[in-house]
Amino acid sequence: MRGAVLYGPRDVRFEERPDPTIVEPTDAIIRLSATCVCGSDLWPYRGIEPITAPTPMGHEYCGIIEEVGSEVTLVKPGEFVIGSFFASDNTCAICQAGYQSRCIHNQYVGAGGAQAPLLRVPLADGTLVATPGTPSDDLVPSLIAASDVLGTGWFGAVAAEAGPGKTVAVVGDGAVGLLAVLAAKQLGAERVIAMSRHESRQQLASEFGATEIVTERGDAGVAKIKELTDGLGAHSVIEAVGTQESMMQAIRSTRPGGHVGYVGVAHGVELPGEELFYSEIHLHGGPAPVRRFLPEMIDLIWNQMINPGKVFDLQLPLADVAEGYRAMDERRAVKTLLRP
Amino acid sequence: MRGAVLYGPRDVRFEERPDPTIVEPTDAIIRLSATCVCGSDLWPYRGIEPITAPTPMGHEYCGIIEEVGSEVTLVKPGEFVIGSFFASDNTCAICQAGYQSRCIHNQYVGAGGAQAPLLRVPLADGTLVATPGTPSDDLVPSLIAASDVLGTGWFGAVAAEAGPGKTVAVVGDGAVGLLAVLAAKQLGAERVIAMSRHESRQQLASEFGATEIVTERGDAGVAKIKELTDGLGAHSVIEAVGTQESMMQAIRSTRPGGHVGYVGVAHGVELPGEELFYSEIHLHGGPAPVRRFLPEMIDLIWNQMINPGKVFDLQLPLADVAEGYRAMDERRAVKTLLRP
Repeated sequence: MRGAVLYGPRDVRFEERPDPTIVEPTDAIIRLSATCVCGSDLWPYRGIEPITAPTPMGHEYCGIIEEVGSEVTLVKPGEFVIGSFFASDNTCAICQAGYQSRCIHNQYVGAGGAQAPLLRVPLADGTLVATPGTPSDDLVPSLIAASDVLGTGWFGAVAAEAGPGKTVAVVGDGAVGLLAVLAAKQLGAERVIAMSRHESRQQLASEFGATEIVTERGDAGVAKIKELTDGLGAHSVIEAVGTQESMMQAIRSTRPGGHVGYVGVAHGVELPGEELFYSEIHLHGGPAPVRRFLPEMIDLIWNQMINPGKVFDLQLPLADVAEGYRAMDERRAVKTLLRP
Repeated sequence: MRGAVLYGPRDVRFEERPDPTIVEPTDAIIRLSATCVCGSDLWPYRGIEPITAPTPMGHEYCGIIEEVGSEVTLVKPGEFVIGSFFASDNTCAICQAGYQSRCIHNQYVGAGGAQAPLLRVPLADGTLVATPGTPSDDLVPSLIAASDVLGTGWFGAVAAEAGPGKTVAVVGDGAVGLLAVLAAKQLGAERVIAMSRHESRQQLASEFGATEIVTERGDAGVAKIKELTDGLGAHSVIEAVGTQESMMQAIRSTRPGGHVGYVGVAHGVELPGEELFYSEIHLHGGPAPVRRFLPEMIDLIWNQMINPGKVFDLQLPLADVAEGYRAMDERRAVKTLLRP
C-alpha cells in the first residue's frame, strides 16, 4: 500500500509501505474510509517536535474491518468502526474511570500511520466502536471527526464542566477549538464565546453554536471576557492551542472556582504556581479519552443532530497528502480530509 | 492592647498597639478567646516573604463579639463566632458558588493582626458564623482550628474529591496536612495514606484516621504510593506544603483521572506543562474558602464528632507569642495555640 511518511521538516512523502498484518490476537486491520491531518501532526511537520527517522503519519481513522485476531469478539469483519489515537483495553481501572487515553495497556495507534489505506488497530475490542450500520458517504467526514478532533473538543468541554447556566469561552479557533464550541453547545452551555480573529473560523464557530465572538487575544482577550461576564470571568474555559500564551489566557479568563479544560498538546508551557494558586480555578486536561465519548458522539452524528464534518474545509485524495499538510501549515485550511 | 508585630526575620515582638475600632458599618470587633500561629506565618517570619514595615501578625480567630457596626444584622454582641482569614460578603456570585476566599469584596482579616486580644472583622455578616452557644473552654482549640487550619485541610480534601471508595494520600505533615487526614476520613475515604517521617506526627495522623503511613518522600514517596495502589497512584492527593518538590510529589502520586487538591501556599512553584498534560489529573486548590465549610465543621466540633484541636501541641499565653513562633520554626511544635 502507499501511505504518508514524514522525512523531516515540511517533507511528507506518499510512498510504498508494507501492508499491516495481525501481530497480536487482539488486533484488527481496518480498511480506511477516510483519514485526516491533525493539528498535532503539524508539530513534527514544522520540526518543533523533531523526528529521528522516517515516520509514518496519521492517527485518525474510521472504516471497515477487514480482519481480526483470534481473541477479538466484540467487533467483526465487515463492520464500520471508529477508534481513538490511543488503543485501550476499556476494562482496567483507569479505563473504567473514563480515562482510556491512559489505559494501563494503552498503545499509540498512530504508530501504524493512519494516513494510509489500511491500519492495524491494537486492542480492537476495547478500542473500536461500531456504527449502527455502514454509513452513507456524507456521514463519513463527521464520523472521522469523532476519532480525534471532535472527541478532543468534547473532552475539553467536559473537563471545563460546560453545561446549563454556564458561560463558556474557547481559546483557539483550530478544528479542536471549533468543535469544542459545538460540544459546549451540546452540553447545554448558556453562552459560548469563541475567541477568533479569522472571519471564516468565526462563521463556523457561529454555525457550531457560538453566541459571541471575541477577536482580542492575550491580556486584551482576558479583559474582554471579563467585560462580558460582569468582571468575573467565564465559568468554563476550553484551551485548544497548547502554548504558554493560550494557557495563561485560559487561566486568566476563568472566574475563581471555575474550570479550565485544556486539550491543546502542551509545548514549552510552564505554569506559575503562585498565580495558579490565587486564581483558585480547576484545571483538567490532557490527551482526550475519546473512547469514553464515542458511543454518544456516534449516536448524535448518526441521527444527524450534529455535523462536525463541517470542520473539513479541504478534501483531497490520500495521494495528495503533502498538499493537505501544506494547506494547514499555511492556514489556508482548518482541517484536511483525505480519502484513500 | 498588646499584640504581636513582626519587625524582620525571626523578630516578633509583643507590644502596644491601638485597640481596633469600627471603621465601616459592616464591621464587628471581637474579643478573642484564642488565636494561633499559622504555618504560613513562618514564611515572613523566616524572611522568605520579606516585609517592608513592622507588621501586625495573625489571621486565625474566634471569640465573643464586643461591638458591631450599624449595618450588621446577622450576628450580635455577646455571640461566640468564628471566621476565616478572608472576609467575604457571602452574597456575590463567587461566594454563592462556594469561593468566599475570592469574594468580589474580599478583605484580608489578618491585616488587623489577630495575635492580639481584640480584632476588627470586616463584612461581619458574611464572614462570621456563630456557634450554638458559648463553648466550654475545652472546645476552644477545636473551634479556633476551624478558622483556618482545619478549614484549609478540609478544602484540600474536598478539592481532591476525597470520598467513599477512594484512596487518599496526603503530602505534608504540618497542621494542615494532619487535618486534611481528618477531613478525608470524615468525607468517607476508604484509605488515607499520610506521608510523614516524624513519629509524633505519624501518631497524630493515625489518631485522625490515617490507615497507612509512608515515610519516603520525593520520587521514593511516589514509588511507594504507586506500590500501595496497584501501580496506579492514589485517587486523591492533598498537597499541604507549597514547594516545587511537594507539588510534583502530589501530581506524580495521583492516578490518571485522579484529583490533586493543593492548599500549601505556593512559593517558587513552576509546573511543567507537558508533564501536567500527560498526567491527565485534575488540579484544584488555592486559599481555602473556609466560610463554605464553617457551619459543617462547627457542627461536628460542637457535637464532639471530631477533635481537630489535638493539632495544638503547644499552648502559651499570648504574651509568649515569640516563643510560639520559635517552637514552630524549629519544628519543636506542630502548631501553637495562644490565649490572650
